[in-house]
Amino acid sequence: MLRFLLPLLATATLAFAQTSPSMQRPYGLVIHGGAGVIQRNQMSPELEKEYRAKLAEALHAGYAVLDRGGSALDAVIATVTVLEDSPLFNAGKGAVFTADGLCELDASIMRGDTLQAGAVAGLRHVKNPIKLVRDVMENSPHVMMIGEGAEEFARSRGHERVPNEYFHTGFRRKQLERAKEKESRANNGTASVPLDLTSPGVGGEDWFSREQKYGTVGCVALDRQGNLAAGTSTGGMTNKKFGRVGDVPVIGAGTYANNATCAVSSTGWGEFFIRSVVAHDISAQMEYRGMDVADSAASTLAKVAKLGGDGGVIVLDRHGRYAMDFNSEGMYRAAKISGRPEIVAIYGDEPRR
Amino acid sequence: MLRFLLPLLATATLAFAQTSPSMQRPYGLVIHGGAGVIQRNQMSPELEKEYRAKLAEALHAGYAVLDRGGSALDAVIATVTVLEDSPLFNAGKGAVFTADGLCELDASIMRGDTLQAGAVAGLRHVKNPIKLVRDVMENSPHVMMIGEGAEEFARSRGHERVPNEYFHTGFRRKQLERAKEKESRANNGTASVPLDLTSPGVGGEDWFSREQKYGTVGCVALDRQGNLAAGTSTGGMTNKKFGRVGDVPVIGAGTYANNATCAVSSTGWGEFFIRSVVAHDISAQMEYRGMDVADSAASTLAKVAKLGGDGGVIVLDRHGRYAMDFNSEGMYRAAKISGRPEIVAIYGDEPRR
Repeated sequence: MLRFLLPLLATATLAFAQTSPSMQRPYGLVIHGGAGVIQRNQMSPELEKEYRAKLAEALHAGYAVLDRGGSALDAVIATVTVLEDSPLFNAGKGAVFTADGLCELDASIMRGDTLQAGAVAGLRHVKNPIKLVRDVMENSPHVMMIGEGAEEFARSRGHERVPNEYFHTGFRRKQLERAKEKESRANNGTASVPLDLTSPGVGGEDWFSREQKYGTVGCVALDRQGNLAAGTSTGGMTNKKFGRVGDVPVIGAGTYANNATCAVSSTGWGEFFIRSVVAHDISAQMEYRGMDVADSAASTLAKVAKLGGDGGVIVLDRHGRYAMDFNSEGMYRAAKISGRPEIVAIYGDEPRR
Repeated sequence: MLRFLLPLLATATLAFAQTSPSMQRPYGLVIHGGAGVIQRNQMSPELEKEYRAKLAEALHAGYAVLDRGGSALDAVIATVTVLEDSPLFNAGKGAVFTADGLCELDASIMRGDTLQAGAVAGLRHVKNPIKLVRDVMENSPHVMMIGEGAEEFARSRGHERVPNEYFHTGFRRKQLERAKEKESRANNGTASVPLDLTSPGVGGEDWFSREQKYGTVGCVALDRQGNLAAGTSTGGMTNKKFGRVGDVPVIGAGTYANNATCAVSSTGWGEFFIRSVVAHDISAQMEYRGMDVADSAASTLAKVAKLGGDGGVIVLDRHGRYAMDFNSEGMYRAAKISGRPEIVAIYGDEPRR
């Protein structure tokens, strides 16, 4: 009998010893700046430094909120605002261009305690979409608003509005030009790949050049009260047409948060992330299969890969356990959990948890 | 020993006897015309007859496709087209009005074999949104398109387009007028309910009058090849503002299909269905918890109710087992599975499976 009880006792003592020093719940956040990283051989040391510095700045902005007892929701807003305001990432300023040469922005947010959520798609003039989705969630009876109607709501609520040109950058303009050149070659029949757009990962290549389809920013946070929140923001896909919307404003695909399981923000080839209901599938595997954040994230990303898609996710549970997983070449990412070392990373050979 | 083996043997023999006569897989479909049914005491016998006849007509249109060996996807299109073309339901012709006096339509579709999907939101001129979402799924690299961009895709693909007035009906016009009167009373402070729009099921009442928020049509089908498909179409919510979009175009909330589990189409208070990721949650409980269609549907609807929302779902698995469940007063619904009696029902005291 003692043989069975002793290990249990030892485990219980160890668990107590690990949490007792401060008796504080862990808190902190995990962020991403998209799974569409610039390839290592094309990244200058200066630019890499800029990316890492901006990721750290965004991380610290959210952590400061949590550190002083602020909510996970406030931390998500603080962090994503920094990333939206930076021209380095495909969200807010620095968003990619549509085929018509405009920036069209999508975003969503969700809180894990009440399961309230907000989402917008097709914005052209709201400076910080992440602030608008919070307002949709808190001050409208709706969850999702699109296009001109969403702009009207933003006006009625006094959100900062900017001309579309505010979002434009030369780097993204060049990406659009390259995408249009590729498309034009494909349409003239000179492309080596047939334009079979329904085959995953084949014909799509001309529309979805790798460097152009994964840009997103996102944040998942856990506050001192034990509440989770998640938020995601994007400019979508370079050269997008027909009012295309990816997974970011789709609650359950791009964003999901539930105190019972985890908070998730996705970045990747949006079409595949919608079809795999990525964020909710990770939560569901934790809830119904008892998996942990890392296994659940890996399992869901494997399903995305099986369909032909790729990208990444950040996942955080209410014990402060997290995963930053991806099956693309890299993912701009960072994490800071109380009492643990801070991580800022870009490439596949750097830490993921 | 024999005492244990005999019942097993009997069961096995019975199972063989039940499936052997035709040795055919079951096939068939389940449909809904929304959980926002007219109350029994306000429904004339003539109108009730019209509703039941149109449900049967839509059911037979899809069943005929399956019966001659057609695909689940074709059956969904055939059935939903009948419902969209009827002024009785809130989809296509007969859609509810926005606050601006327009009809704006959303739809989505998904196939269970490939997990391909298509969705549109905010259409004003496409006669049959269900045909457009199939085209988005099959002939674009995208899953979701919104607003004017989606209209442009429809034009480029030759879909039948109509003036917005085609969708208008006097019945829905009256609903809009009533909703505006209620809203005006609420804004003048004469409403008995405070306009706290963030409290589920409380302040929303003035925007979301019960009769106005549940209109949707949908279909889940299983073909002779064993493939599942699901489709949903709606005009959304009477008096909707700000480009509001409900759960219908959100893959995982309004529509989901996966041959490994089930096909689902939802109808209800869209905001709560998005937050609960209803369609995918039902599938996830079947996949990860081993629940059947009925228990899984009931479990997920209970979560929606806990948040303060209501509505219904139709769920069909690849063995032909189905549920038509709802926690609203009723749901226009019908089912026809090979070798089993046909069901057409409206109210809560009629069959649900």
